Amino acid sequence: MKIYLAGPDVFLHDAVDIGRRKAEMCRRHGLIGLYPLDNAIDPAAEDASLQIFRGNETMMIEADAIIANLTPFRGPGADAGTVYELGYMAGRGKLCLGYSNDPSSYADRVREFTDVNSRDGRLIDAQGLTVEDFGLTDNLMMIHALDLHGCALVTPRQPPADLWHDLTAFETCVRMAAGRQASPHTRASN
Amino acid sequence: MKIYLAGPDVFLHDAVDIGRRKAEMCRRHGLIGLYPLDNAIDPAAEDASLQIFRGNETMMIEADAIIANLTPFRGPGADAGTVYELGYMAGRGKLCLGYSNDPSSYADRVREFTDVNSRDGRLIDAQGLTVEDFGLTDNLMMIHALDLHGCALVTPRQPPADLWHDLTAFETCVRMAAGRQASPHTRASN
Repeated sequence: MKIYLAGPDVFLHDAVDIGRRKAEMCRRHGLIGLYPLDNAIDPAAEDASLQIFRGNETMMIEADAIIANLTPFRGPGADAGTVYELGYMAGRGKLCLGYSNDPSSYADRVREFTDVNSRDGRLIDAQGLTVEDFGLTDNLMMIHALDLHGCALVTPRQPPADLWHDLTAFETCVRMAAGRQASPHTRASN
Repeated sequence: MKIYLAGPDVFLHDAVDIGRRKAEMCRRHGLIGLYPLDNAIDPAAEDASLQIFRGNETMMIEADAIIANLTPFRGPGADAGTVYELGYMAGRGKLCLGYSNDPSSYADRVREFTDVNSRDGRLIDAQGLTVEDFGLTDNLMMIHALDLHGCALVTPRQPPADLWHDLTAFETCVRMAAGRQASPHTRASN
């Protein structure tokens, strides 16, 4: 089983190293990890961003599954590029797995991020927009996509000391994917 | 052509009204707008979030196209639920359109949001994570998904006075979708 390794990990200073660690964990469980930085892109090329897009899309089409790192990124929720890729894989009927190293609820994180008030039984942010308050870890589209098209979001009980380098929750996803490979009849239908 | 109307519009205090306005604009251009709040969900139900997910997914499967409102939401980038839906529709080979009422670049918005420094020719945020700096309006996955699977992101020259209720850019998307309906041979391939 080939697994697309999505996440803002590609923005870390040691992005190449963390990709190697993730791919190695996949290998140990009999899986093949496809990591976006494996695409050789010239960052100085005029169409670098388009090359990255095409490389990622080709990898996703090749992959059987995705493990998305949905740890909150520059705001109360997950990285947009990763979320796009989770949606893309769900749309193609691939097996969807994901983890977040922050187990807090989305509503609680929005409270840290901006003023939130209760009005008519709803949470409203400083701009007057309703805050999703279902007790979920992030936006319901991502959380239930995992529930229905793969495995429920994996979170630790407590955030690890290093939010961006701790791969415990990632490895749980790898184990679950390996289990699905061993028993493909339990694979989520689309 | 049926169009799924994705966006954080559903979190506005007048979400139902803006949905009606969007659907009416679609109707005037010979299109059918499908707006998530059209799904009758009991918000007090224990499985309300799952019902919303299932309703949205059913609507997306029914739709031929998506118009995603990618105006920045609670942070420097677009709403995660909307981004997931754009990915889902791209994955299913549907026509993808989108707009943002904020024409600034992603990198410029991150600068307003957190400290950003230049190091080794890259922009780095306060957490040490690289900031995408291709001059694009948001994450490259969304921007190029629109370029390659539909129409380029629509933005106004200047942000409108009311970022959440101005539908000028939305109507441009509706016109482009209507044009694709009239000339289906120009539709993006998947």
